[in-house]
Amino acid sequence: MSDLAPKLTHLNEAGQPAMVNVGPKAMTARLARARARVRLGADILALVQAGDLPTRKGPVFQTAIIAGVMAAKKTADLIPLCHPLGMDDCQITIETVQPDSLVIECTARVTGKTGIEMEALTGASVAALTVYDMCKAMSHDIVIEEIRLLDKTGGKSDFHHAD
Amino acid sequence: MSDLAPKLTHLNEAGQPAMVNVGPKAMTARLARARARVRLGADILALVQAGDLPTRKGPVFQTAIIAGVMAAKKTADLIPLCHPLGMDDCQITIETVQPDSLVIECTARVTGKTGIEMEALTGASVAALTVYDMCKAMSHDIVIEEIRLLDKTGGKSDFHHAD
Amino acid sequence: MSDLAPKLTHLNEAGQPAMVNVGPKAMTARLARARARVRLGADILALVQAGDLPTRKGPVFQTAIIAGVMAAKKTADLIPLCHPLGMDDCQITIETVQPDSLVIECTARVTGKTGIEMEALTGASVAALTVYDMCKAMSHDIVIEEIRLLDKTGGKSDFHHAD
Amino acid sequence: MSDLAPKLTHLNEAGQPAMVNVGPKAMTARLARARARVRLGADILALVQAGDLPTRKGPVFQTAIIAGVMAAKKTADLIPLCHPLGMDDCQITIETVQPDSLVIECTARVTGKTGIEMEALTGASVAALTVYDMCKAMSHDIVIEEIRLLDKTGGKSDFHHAD
Amino acid sequence: MSDLAPKLTHLNEAGQPAMVNVGPKAMTARLARARARVRLGADILALVQAGDLPTRKGPVFQTAIIAGVMAAKKTADLIPLCHPLGMDDCQITIETVQPDSLVIECTARVTGKTGIEMEALTGASVAALTVYDMCKAMSHDIVIEEIRLLDKTGGKSDFHHAD
Amino acid sequence: MSDLAPKLTHLNEAGQPAMVNVGPKAMTARLARARARVRLGADILALVQAGDLPTRKGPVFQTAIIAGVMAAKKTADLIPLCHPLGMDDCQITIETVQPDSLVIECTARVTGKTGIEMEALTGASVAALTVYDMCKAMSHDIVIEEIRLLDKTGGKSDFHHAD
Repeated sequence: MSDLAPKLTHLNEAGQPAMVNVGPKAMTARLARARARVRLGADILALVQAGDLPTRKGPVFQTAIIAGVMAAKKTADLIPLCHPLGMDDCQITIETVQPDSLVIECTARVTGKTGIEMEALTGASVAALTVYDMCKAMSHDIVIEEIRLLDKTGGKSDFHHAD
Repeated sequence: MSDLAPKLTHLNEAGQPAMVNVGPKAMTARLARARARVRLGADILALVQAGDLPTRKGPVFQTAIIAGVMAAKKTADLIPLCHPLGMDDCQITIETVQPDSLVIECTARVTGKTGIEMEALTGASVAALTVYDMCKAMSHDIVIEEIRLLDKTGGKSDFHHAD
Repeated sequence: MSDLAPKLTHLNEAGQPAMVNVGPKAMTARLARARARVRLGADILALVQAGDLPTRKGPVFQTAIIAGVMAAKKTADLIPLCHPLGMDDCQITIETVQPDSLVIECTARVTGKTGIEMEALTGASVAALTVYDMCKAMSHDIVIEEIRLLDKTGGKSDFHHAD
Repeated sequence: MSDLAPKLTHLNEAGQPAMVNVGPKAMTARLARARARVRLGADILALVQAGDLPTRKGPVFQTAIIAGVMAAKKTADLIPLCHPLGMDDCQITIETVQPDSLVIECTARVTGKTGIEMEALTGASVAALTVYDMCKAMSHDIVIEEIRLLDKTGGKSDFHHAD
Repeated sequence: MSDLAPKLTHLNEAGQPAMVNVGPKAMTARLARARARVRLGADILALVQAGDLPTRKGPVFQTAIIAGVMAAKKTADLIPLCHPLGMDDCQITIETVQPDSLVIECTARVTGKTGIEMEALTGASVAALTVYDMCKAMSHDIVIEEIRLLDKTGGKSDFHHAD
Repeated sequence: MSDLAPKLTHLNEAGQPAMVNVGPKAMTARLARARARVRLGADILALVQAGDLPTRKGPVFQTAIIAGVMAAKKTADLIPLCHPLGMDDCQITIETVQPDSLVIECTARVTGKTGIEMEALTGASVAALTVYDMCKAMSHDIVIEEIRLLDKTGGKSDFHHAD
């Protein structure tokens, strides 16, 4: 555990919350990919798919995608100690997973001094909350079951989640 | 399923995304409570607790609480078809759950024409993302395992999740 | 002209910009409807319709609708002397008009002390700008040709534009 | 001091930061007035006045007034535990005070459940910061010397600062 | 038309809304200039000019200029698939055009990987909406008659509108 | 005074408010440090310290630090003619000064084309306003007594305030 301690990077020596100074770091091309899973229940999943037929590109999915992209751009506004980064790209996909769930993936890219995983996680989370909002009149038991990082490249060391 | 269809309330007759008109509804006192669970892993949990001793009110928890409250106030900015509501109250608590997790609860109250569950869910989600951000240098395997509604009162019908 | 002068309501006696005090006013149910027309050109119009077939609910229209609703909610953030109002409802529709244009209508409702026309106009304007953004790679000659108020009810006197 | 303790209202029983629940409170007409003083130095004051002649309504003052009003509307976005309030009115005035200063006053009004002094203070502060920004190329020694509450009415007890 | 199709850049292969990845692009100095025309009517135009005499720099024009600059900075917050860009410069001018109109021009500059025309268009649009807001008590027939791009340089190919 | 005039940089030749074009400027590593002093009164200072014991890192200080950092990131949203800058770092410290005051210092760093002093000043100001908000139930006579620049490096010329 002692080797973890120095890594609680968002506290300064006095134990107060603090940003990390990224001034001396180099600009690199960075990517992060995050996933959110939403368990809608089988009935609602069927309805969402039907409502979005034939292309499954319809309002629930698209509204969630747009909300997620816009939220990813607001990450530094939401997460107190995040650096304001630009963003080169933000892609969100939503897939249905039988029998009852959606899987949302958000991939964010930036050329910058620090990682972009919070942007990817925020984008996936708000897309999931938007799905929840649009379906919540049908059930109070919709659950976001997982939000996690899948990939991260371009920083000190890469990470790939082995699913 | 057919009885669910009319409830996909955020699509209008043309299938386009739309707000729900709450103009004719009465103002009532409403409450919603939501929960997020974050699996940090046992080592990080120990560290967070230690760093926050003796009162467990320290920087990670407090930063997350503040971020969650501020995000709850921004809900209508994040979720496209949410009504802009005021908020009478927003309380966030964070508890450790052995061996490896945190449980975040966000309770939001409003006197208004529509429910406040998206505010509670957004507050819990962003508090969880903030915990993630502050601990992410220690692990890429932190997972937000659950975001769900626990209680909702003051609307047409109450809801209480039986845990 | 002299009878117009007292109505330049957003300047105070010193000629400085100022909000209007709506404290003493009563809460009434108010509605405003605004329109934006976007001339895309015939080729782009055909493409947008084709891409959105068969339901014309596809990505360009829906993205613009969502952007417009979200911007309507941000009106008081954008227009310096607007009051922060809630919003009971915001509906945006987009119709194609042969041979080359789109007509966007935004209807906003509130129960409040002051009118909601700036919200309707802002929603229509940002929906139009979003259409522009999504189509701009095809032409630099897309023009927003008109943004205007169509209806306003619930205040001192109603207004209806005779088209 | 013990009688002050229960009044540290933004901490809950666990000592964590928390909003105050205003749900049960009645709506009343509330007003707050705050003041900021900016010491520009005599040379800059002369220049600002000259540039704004003959009406002293020119760009520095007006830009600051508009910035202050817009910031007052964003108060709940800036101050973590502030309730999102509407606002019935926000008036900002700026006066020169010989030999070297400006006095900015911001008066905010709301019909609501809680006081609006943070809005008045935030409006005055950001107006002062905007004056600073517009004049800072001329001196690094501009100082905001005072930001304080002058009046507060409509709550449990009124307050008037005896100047 | 088929040669236009690949250019509907904000839809991905699945037809879902998507940002364009600008990661591989080079940073260049870019400029965009946009125009909005507002038909106030002759009486209101006269009043606005008179109120702003002798320098025409008065509150309506200045408030609109400031609102436009601030909105240009918020473009990525308003237009869903816009990249968050910095901004090197944003200039807004307002001219009266006899007998009844204002012409607003917004010029934005950035050193970046993608064009800044949405910033220029958003700045011009919100400046126009702000003029509308400040004059709307005098007429419901104020119309924003045109919002369009005038110039764009620094990207793959330049554009200049031949007026 | 005449040599000051050309430096009123935020007015253009027509006397209208305007950003400064920083396009041609080089990117340099810049730092600014600002200070806010808050006079709480001796009783409240004792209470704040006690409530935050034993580490003085407790809720009032931490809430203010977080609010200040988040506000620093919003500077370009608040100050009309500020450029949107990224931020490499933002550190806020709060110290007690006997008998009755707090001193807040905010240090901001950026690699950019223009100075970051408005970010440092905004961070310090909003941290001070947050302290005020959390303590205001105990007194209406809390005063922010000073907000000023302490240091600025990385631009054309450095500045250091001799305290």
